[in-house]
Amino acid sequence: MLGKLSGWDDTIVALATPPGVGAIGVIRLSGKKSIEIVNELFHAKDLTQQASHTLHVGTLKEGKNILDEVVVSLYKSPKSYTGEDVVEVSCHGSPFVQEKILESLLKQGARMAKPGEFTQRAFLHGKLDLAQAEAVADLIASNAEAARKSALHTMRGGFSHELQQLRERLLNFSALIELELDFSQEDVEFADRKQFYQLINEAETTTNRLLESFQLGNVIRNGVQAAIVGKPNAGKSTLLNALLNEDRAIVSEIAGTTRDTIEELINIEGILFRLIDTAGIRQHTSSDIESMGVARSMEKIEQADVVIHLFDVNDEAVSGEWLVANHVRDELLAMGNRQLAMVNSELDDHTVIANDKSDKFIYVGNKTDTIGSEAAQKKFSNIPGAIFISAREGAGIDTLKKALAAHVLHGKSQPEGTIITNARHYHALQQVSLSLMDIRKGLDEKLSGDLLALDIRRCLHYLGEITGEVTNEEQLGVIFGRFCIGK
Amino acid sequence: MLGKLSGWDDTIVALATPPGVGAIGVIRLSGKKSIEIVNELFHAKDLTQQASHTLHVGTLKEGKNILDEVVVSLYKSPKSYTGEDVVEVSCHGSPFVQEKILESLLKQGARMAKPGEFTQRAFLHGKLDLAQAEAVADLIASNAEAARKSALHTMRGGFSHELQQLRERLLNFSALIELELDFSQEDVEFADRKQFYQLINEAETTTNRLLESFQLGNVIRNGVQAAIVGKPNAGKSTLLNALLNEDRAIVSEIAGTTRDTIEELINIEGILFRLIDTAGIRQHTSSDIESMGVARSMEKIEQADVVIHLFDVNDEAVSGEWLVANHVRDELLAMGNRQLAMVNSELDDHTVIANDKSDKFIYVGNKTDTIGSEAAQKKFSNIPGAIFISAREGAGIDTLKKALAAHVLHGKSQPEGTIITNARHYHALQQVSLSLMDIRKGLDEKLSGDLLALDIRRCLHYLGEITGEVTNEEQLGVIFGRFCIGK
Repeated sequence: MLGKLSGWDDTIVALATPPGVGAIGVIRLSGKKSIEIVNELFHAKDLTQQASHTLHVGTLKEGKNILDEVVVSLYKSPKSYTGEDVVEVSCHGSPFVQEKILESLLKQGARMAKPGEFTQRAFLHGKLDLAQAEAVADLIASNAEAARKSALHTMRGGFSHELQQLRERLLNFSALIELELDFSQEDVEFADRKQFYQLINEAETTTNRLLESFQLGNVIRNGVQAAIVGKPNAGKSTLLNALLNEDRAIVSEIAGTTRDTIEELINIEGILFRLIDTAGIRQHTSSDIESMGVARSMEKIEQADVVIHLFDVNDEAVSGEWLVANHVRDELLAMGNRQLAMVNSELDDHTVIANDKSDKFIYVGNKTDTIGSEAAQKKFSNIPGAIFISAREGAGIDTLKKALAAHVLHGKSQPEGTIITNARHYHALQQVSLSLMDIRKGLDEKLSGDLLALDIRRCLHYLGEITGEVTNEEQLGVIFGRFCIGK
Repeated sequence: MLGKLSGWDDTIVALATPPGVGAIGVIRLSGKKSIEIVNELFHAKDLTQQASHTLHVGTLKEGKNILDEVVVSLYKSPKSYTGEDVVEVSCHGSPFVQEKILESLLKQGARMAKPGEFTQRAFLHGKLDLAQAEAVADLIASNAEAARKSALHTMRGGFSHELQQLRERLLNFSALIELELDFSQEDVEFADRKQFYQLINEAETTTNRLLESFQLGNVIRNGVQAAIVGKPNAGKSTLLNALLNEDRAIVSEIAGTTRDTIEELINIEGILFRLIDTAGIRQHTSSDIESMGVARSMEKIEQADVVIHLFDVNDEAVSGEWLVANHVRDELLAMGNRQLAMVNSELDDHTVIANDKSDKFIYVGNKTDTIGSEAAQKKFSNIPGAIFISAREGAGIDTLKKALAAHVLHGKSQPEGTIITNARHYHALQQVSLSLMDIRKGLDEKLSGDLLALDIRRCLHYLGEITGEVTNEEQLGVIFGRFCIGK
């Protein structure tokens, strides 16, 4: 595969650790000359004479100018991440020091790595297939348990293995059918059509399962947009705090994650929920509070995958025959709102909805501490599936969390096995699915072997696109361009 | 030294790389059980059976739950940073993944490291002395060439070596003088007083040189606060941009460095200048522009170590007998301003001033493109040391930069050798200096050996405080508490 592509003879370098001040930083090189280049600056021993997978303490010098005291890790081809000679220089965690070292390495003949270029080289040297390589980026970006697990599963080849099996069996049939073509005068059938039907059935089952997993995969990858709506004084801020106090996601503590948004992140059963910070929105009140409130609620409901509709159990207006939420939703639907209309329409790649069929509203009665939980349940027995809580006292919060998780997982306890989280894979699988339908149709219509073979090849093509057996430089550029530099 | 202190038997762990998303992150452990603890989670081979300074690729698992695919670096005691068994786990650069691994390591019996605890252990195991350990933190924080060099020099033991030599020679004399005490009846002099005078002379020279270097050291460590002041339309923003365009410091590109301040960082000859962003201040103009302008200029002049007083060479008001700058300064002095009054008073640890004796003003005539450089020089020949530039055309900017650097370095080309950047070292050296004066006085007055010995011991005590031969747990806590976690 490497033969097809040019420009992989040089040695690349980049900072592999996050930018900023830390105890240590790691600068990574990959390529034929990586050991030689570092050796030019390293003063302690001759690195070119050292074994793979060894560590060497020494001083980096450019001429007489000492750059830093460092530890050098050696990984010799092919036993390295990229498959090439890889050197990691572990230096002091000062951005200034790292910049100096990078400059010196560039002077010695390395060049700055492009985003994802280390992983791209790993792919080109057959250390990872494309789906695995993409999972590396997903793993790095993962910020909740389900996302981490799913990325790790794919990175370790779980997904590729499933596709590989499918591909091999299809290839086998393809070969037999193409063999028939050579003997077309003799009207023989090497490929057992019954077995072929069975293979197509199995392939369709696998493909459909994977396609279906994308809905959950998207949620896992991007998190669930959840909004808390309700009248003023329903206790929205109190509920937000009750949810946040216990399970605030680790990522929300990291600078920049939520800088430009007004959302709070919480982890519920390994899934990241992005709670739209209604407290923040509430500050923008004006004289015509009522209309603004409705407009803002609508906006939130539009954006959200799940809407927690909070009401005060003392609110007599709610205990009637219809809910405020329904009212708001009806209004939105009447407006022909583009995004909300999709709730019951087709799945869009970028808009995650909890469930085609399900209602995205969860009705939550707050302030059970005032009238008691049982009384509240009785009073609002006309609201299906309502949950009753006391945000102030923390009662019922666990039930609400379970309901939120169940809403996303559709009753499954935890996501297992391969989950498609990548839109590129999803689109390729859709094409695989269409090809399988065409193959089945061909079999039904007893199409000739040469036409069947065409459909099978189309199916194989799309399967190969996912793992990168079929690819081109431009596509790779797009895929790896999304990686961070240094990976 | 370790015997004196308790609680170092456990194994510590921390993230050693900066927080945030990157290609890789490194989690570091140190302590007796560090290899054992990682081995509990590591699935590939038995880490306890591997050699020091080797790298091991494998999977971290907690029960059946795969945490990540990692590379483990082993450093066996005493050949490690801390002198203890050290393990570094290089994992994927997701904060979430790192958090999971940290949690699992804590469950296996490691505990979170306190700030600077790795380096503190290195100190307690004699891998670094105290001055060297402090230089590690300075190196990490360094953001310009002079700071990096100075920290590296001290970290590599340059400063400690000088103190060591002094200490040994004093110890030698101290021993001889204490020997005299044993023979006090016999009135012998083992310690040659002439040689002792010479030693004291040399010690004083060294100490004074080090003490003097602190002024520069402070500038190197903290950067130079530089303000550009001048009338509106003198070209302050244009000059700021001309300075920034070429030499904007690397650090200013890193998020957060300048977030809360309105200063711009530039590197001039390896020294960091913090240019107060006058452009930012200028926006806050009001109706009484004149008075606000003066007040703001005063404030800037107060804060600055160097003031670039910019004037338009076409401004006839400047070509008179006095300068606007002088006027402003006179006003400030008349106000008895606390900080400006210090210009000619004692050096404060936290306020860096360019030079006790020097004027902190650099007079710069701008817009030479309008009347020509020579004409400008002639016109303002009454301003001593004035520099003439065209900020718009970039003319004279290099001269101005050289003048700024010279202002800080006092004519030296580049800082060389040991430079004191640490207030603790400065204060200890002041005590050393006082002890040396007492010793000299004692010699002059032909004091008895026992009294001389006391002064020498005091001198040795303060020398030992710098390198940590003399120390206590509380002091160490303060020193290492300033480090980042993971170092």
